[in-house]
Formats: sequence, structure tokens, C-alpha cells
Amino acid sequence: MKKTTVKGTNDYLPEEAKLRDYLQSTILKTYTDAGFERIMTPAVEDIENLDKSDGGDNLNLIFKILKRGDKLDKALSSGDSSNLADMGLRYDLTLPLSRYFANNREKLLMPSKFIQTDRVYRAERPQKGRLREFVQCDIDIIGSSSPSCEIELIHTTAKALLALDMTGFTVKVNDRRILRALLTSCGFEENQLDSVCISFDKLDKIGADGVKAELTDKGFDSAAIESFSNLIANPVTLDDVKDKCGEEAVSGLEFIINASKELAGDKYGIVFDLSLVRGQGYYTGTVFEIVSDKFRGSIAGGGRYDNLIGKFTGENIPAVGFSIGFERIFAILSETDNPIPDAKKKIALLFDKQDTVKAIRAAEKLREHYDVILSEKPKKLSKYLDRLSEKGYYGFCFLDNTDDIRELKA
Amino acid sequence: MKKTTVKGTNDYLPEEAKLRDYLQSTILKTYTDAGFERIMTPAVEDIENLDKSDGGDNLNLIFKILKRGDKLDKALSSGDSSNLADMGLRYDLTLPLSRYFANNREKLLMPSKFIQTDRVYRAERPQKGRLREFVQCDIDIIGSSSPSCEIELIHTTAKALLALDMTGFTVKVNDRRILRALLTSCGFEENQLDSVCISFDKLDKIGADGVKAELTDKGFDSAAIESFSNLIANPVTLDDVKDKCGEEAVSGLEFIINASKELAGDKYGIVFDLSLVRGQGYYTGTVFEIVSDKFRGSIAGGGRYDNLIGKFTGENIPAVGFSIGFERIFAILSETDNPIPDAKKKIALLFDKQDTVKAIRAAEKLREHYDVILSEKPKKLSKYLDRLSEKGYYGFCFLDNTDDIRELKA
Repeated sequence: MKKTTVKGTNDYLPEEAKLRDYLQSTILKTYTDAGFERIMTPAVEDIENLDKSDGGDNLNLIFKILKRGDKLDKALSSGDSSNLADMGLRYDLTLPLSRYFANNREKLLMPSKFIQTDRVYRAERPQKGRLREFVQCDIDIIGSSSPSCEIELIHTTAKALLALDMTGFTVKVNDRRILRALLTSCGFEENQLDSVCISFDKLDKIGADGVKAELTDKGFDSAAIESFSNLIANPVTLDDVKDKCGEEAVSGLEFIINASKELAGDKYGIVFDLSLVRGQGYYTGTVFEIVSDKFRGSIAGGGRYDNLIGKFTGENIPAVGFSIGFERIFAILSETDNPIPDAKKKIALLFDKQDTVKAIRAAEKLREHYDVILSEKPKKLSKYLDRLSEKGYYGFCFLDNTDDIRELKA
Repeated sequence: MKKTTVKGTNDYLPEEAKLRDYLQSTILKTYTDAGFERIMTPAVEDIENLDKSDGGDNLNLIFKILKRGDKLDKALSSGDSSNLADMGLRYDLTLPLSRYFANNREKLLMPSKFIQTDRVYRAERPQKGRLREFVQCDIDIIGSSSPSCEIELIHTTAKALLALDMTGFTVKVNDRRILRALLTSCGFEENQLDSVCISFDKLDKIGADGVKAELTDKGFDSAAIESFSNLIANPVTLDDVKDKCGEEAVSGLEFIINASKELAGDKYGIVFDLSLVRGQGYYTGTVFEIVSDKFRGSIAGGGRYDNLIGKFTGENIPAVGFSIGFERIFAILSETDNPIPDAKKKIALLFDKQDTVKAIRAAEKLREHYDVILSEKPKKLSKYLDRLSEKGYYGFCFLDNTDDIRELKA
């Protein structure tokens, strides 16, 4: 029998599981308090739903579940190996949410404000920081195209991070419609916009000169590149954009940014970032991302996807969501001291077997002030106490004198 | 695209998800407060570990995950269809726990007290009340053969049920060693004991006469059947057993039952039930089960499995566990009124888009007393209010006067 977990998945030790539970329950409480409601969907979905979804690269990363019984026999004898699976593990929570909404629409309030926090699966090539089973924490508002949704999502996501004692972060906001209008005004053609965006998304890494060089390599019109390069040579403000795209186009985004700034106060920053693209193909309008001053990469991301749910319902339903990078936050907080505030000190209560009832009652009293583990007196006491100390226990006591909590040597 | 979930799995509506979260967090808090620690393992396990486990019938119910890339091509071209999967979804939490213990033993305190509450998967034939994806809530103590473990598990499991306001339940306790000794003393042979136990397990359903008839049909020795039938004609007490098996054999069980009775007081019953067998092949000693006065079937079950972990570690490690039937409890509490105590009344705060910031701030104040959903004033107000009422909302207010909470008509 193999002792290790399958590749790309983790066992979590008690102290790790405790931190994960703390993160998840803190995020969930923040979201619930803000008027969002948790829903739950199965980890398995119909294979056709997964295959036909707009998942981009993720479609190559689906874990497929083998058919069973007669259906498997039939598929095997047909010789068609693409037909061996009838289900798959979900690769994100957005496809299940879209299916869920279509399946339960009659029973839901409109607009609906959803929380999803659950496991997803991707057959990634295992490497550091890339898991095949990981948790996502999403909030979504379905059924409203008002910019008040974006404001509520940004405010609530930031609140969850603040509740976890994360500070020094900035919310970047952009709107794909503005970016595309701007690129068009520079002279790029409609069918070139996606490719220009891919290069522009690298601005942080390769700088304005790098973007210009890449666009030139791609062979785009030099006047368009020149016009665009002049524009991005300096940080682009919303006012710059207003001049190019017209006031009306940017007023929605301005409303979102100004309201979010007012709500943020001095706790975190809100900035317009024209170079923010986000990878997902399904975003149709605003996109946002949260970056930390202290850690590389983003810690949350999201945007508006007004066309995705229509794939199930047949009519367009506006939707916008924001997802916290749970595994990223877990990795960051795992490195900090005492990430869980107000945790009680851990002690062991040692007793003899015949006193089990008395020990259970004594432990229940002690638990007002300590985290207490019940433990029959071990044969090798000093070895056991060393182990307690290693595991972060503060002390221990014997049942005959539970007032005498003895501190363990570090 | 298919709107429904795959067979045997469920979408949970917000109110259902809320109840499931309440159940899970209440059980988890009770277990954590009692000194148990949560661990987490992946939902996927190596296919060989699953296939070689002692899972009995469950081995036929494993969802297998198709190999990918070159490995799949190789498996397909070999023509060996038993070799197409490299992983599977876990069918219970006991096999992953055993692997986990073996994998992390060096890092764990001994004995270890574990909580697991997570999803498991079985390819059951879908039928009412049988799910293919469902939640189990287990506590286990690994590394101690002391009967104080059983006492702690029974007390803690009962506490979790009481915390959920479940009353009118009884803990049945037995020990397979006693049952087997008793059957042997009646004249059955070692290799007949499992079969006799299977018949005896039906005592509740078919009565003592039914058990006798079934044993006769099976062709066992008539003197042994007669001796056993006389014994079970009336309820069997621990004292009756003591006469037949000797005092020492029953003292451990007596200790467990007496201590558990003392801890239970008048809150729930503890009874010795000689006919309690439990299906799992891996139980080696005590077995227990909780039944309710109000609902058929068991709501929790467990026992001692001293040989299972040895399959991974190579040396015998004593272990005992108790599992709450989460889906059973969820089904029972779904039928009751107000299963979640002290839930705040739900109201909607209606506002105009330009007042989003003011509305978010007003909602945050109102949330001291109410569950508040923010909602832009809908075009069809009276239709929206009807919907709120249907969804269990108590009332609503407008942003310009949040003191005036208007109650909705039922």
C-alpha cells in the first residue's frame, strides 16, 4: 500500500488544517455577513458540460471518470477511446455556478448573491505551488448589470482580506470595453485586439519598451504601435482615457472606482490599471485583481462575464464575480507567526484509566481557558512531554490537581 | 448543456447549504472543543490503495479516474481494460485516515485524536436516500487500546447530537469478542460465526423466532441453535453474558457502559445490545451505534479496528472511531421547523444606484440586528416583495429611512 498522497495533492497536518479552517470560516463569515449566501454543487459534472465549456486551457486539464458496468463494456468494444468517461471533476466553480443557476433559477431571488468555497481539480504538471486539488473562494452576483455589484464585490472581498489581517494591498480595476475602444482609437483592428492585449498584459514584467518591441515583432501597423506606445509611456489615468474614449464610456468605471475609494478609506488602495487584462476568455466588461505590496502575484481576481450563463439558459444573464486565491493566502499566512488570533493555549490533562469519567469532566471545565487534550498517563512521561512541547503545547497537568498547570520547557 | 446535476448528486439551495454549514460547524466545534484535531486528505487516492483495501462491497462502487496522455495511450494499446485508471475517488474516510497516519506518523502526537468531515463517493444504484456524493463526519483515536477511548468517543459523539438539539436517542454497545465467545460456548464452530452473526444482526427485524428459523435453514447444529435460541428468547443482559463468558471478558465493556451511563445522566440512554454486529469486516472489538426513538435506522455508528492501519505501517496499531451519519441528520433536521437556533431575521435594504456607498454603510449598521441583503430598487417592486416573502424574508426598508422596517405579508 502506498503511504503518500497522489501527485499534486496534499495531506494537511492538524495545525495546517486548523489554519485552513480558520481562513475558510473567516472568509465565509465575512461573505455571509455581507448578505451573500453559500450554495453547494457536486465536485463531479457531466463530461459534456465540461468539454463544451469556455474553459480555455483548463479543458486539457480535466480529470475524467471512467464509465462503469455495461456502459464501459460498450464504450471499450466500440473502440472509440474518446467515449470512455461519462463524468469529470470540475476545474473551477464558475461552470458549476452557471449550471446551478440554470437548474434552480425558479427557486432563487433575483439578483442572486452567491458564495462558493470548495475544491476544484486540474491535471496540472506537478510543480512547486501548482496543486491538482485546491480550494477556490468565490462570490458572484447574478442577474444585475448595475455597477453597484462591482462596488459590493470589491468592498466585500477586501473586507475578507482585512478580516484575515492582510494589509498593504491594492485593488486594480479596468474595463475590457475601455481597453478595446482605446486600442481601436490607436488604429488596431478588431481582430488584432486579443493579441495586443496579451502583449500589453505583460507591461509589469517587460515594461513599455518591451510591449512595443513585442507588438512590432507581431507585425502590427507601426502608426498604431507608435500611437499606443506614446499613450502608455507614462502611467495612464482615467482622465487620459476619457479624452480618448469619450466621457460616457468611462463613467461606469469612474463610479466604481470613486465609490470603492470612499469605502476603502486608508485601509487599501484602488487604482485604475489600463494594462490589467486577466486571462479568462469569458470576461466581457470590468476586470479586477488584488495585489499585495509584500508578495508577488495576485491574491484575488475577477470580473464581469455577461455571456456565460446564457450557454445554459439560452438568454443572456448578466453576472460578475470575485475569487480569492485561497491557496495563495494559505501559503502566505502559513509563513507568518500566529496567523490565528486569540487561539487558546494548548495543554494536556493526564489521568489514570479508572478515572476516565472524572477526567472528562475536569477537561470540560478547563476548556473555558485552555485547549485541553485528554491523555492517559503514558509509560514514558518525559518523552511524551517533549513531544507535546514540539507540537506547540504550552503545558500539562495531572487530574489530582488541575489548578497546577505546569509549563513545558521549549 | 445539461442543467441538472449528475445522477445521485445534489445542488444545495442557499437555505439547504446554510443548514449543512450549521450542522458541519456545530459538529466540528463540538469535536474540536473536546480535544480532537481536524485533518484533511485528498478526495482522490491511488487506485491500488483503494482496490487492495478491506472495503467489502464498497470496492465495487469506486469511481475510477482515467489515466491521461501517454499513460492512457499505453494502457489502451495494451488491450488490458483493467489498467485504464490510476486514481479513484475515496469511498470512505477510514482508508485515507489509515494512509494519512502511516504517511505522517513521525509528525503526530501519540495517541492521535482526529476529526474528519468531508465528502466521499460511491457509485451506488441511485435510489431515494442513496447518494453518490455524500458527507461523513468521523472522530477516531489512533494508538491506544484503552477503553477510555471508547468512553471519550461515545461522550463526544452524543454531545455533538445534543448540540444539534437531537434528543431521544440511545447508544447501543457490544463487543464482537464477547459475541463470538458466546456463540462458541453455544456450540457453533469458528468458521460458522460470521454467518450466525449475519442472521443475528436481523433480530430487530425478524425477531428471535426468525433468527432461529434462518439458522435452521442454514443447516447449523440443532443443539447449538437451541442453546442460542434459549439465550436470546429474552433480552440478554451483561450479567447473563458474564455467566457464559467469564467475568474478565466482559469487564472492559462493563467499564465502558458504566462510565458512559454516568456521563450521559438522563440525557440519553446507553444499552448493551448483544445483537449489534455492524457490517464492516474490519471491526475487531467494541462496536457501537446510535438509534433515535423518532426515526428508523441508525444515526451514528463505529467501532474498534485494531488491524487496519497495520496494512500501511506493517505493525499493528490500535484504532477506534465513531461516525455521524451526516446525510441522515441533514434529512431529519430538514424536516423540522427552525433547525438553526437564533438565526437573525432577514430583511432587504432597497436603494438607488447613485447611493451605493451610503447603502453599503447603512446595511453594515443594520446587520447588528438583521440579516441584510442589499438590493437596488427593482422595477417591479410588489413582485419583488412577494418573492422576498416566499424566500422567508421578514421585511424590508428603504435607504432614506432605515428605522422603518416594514414587515412583509406572509
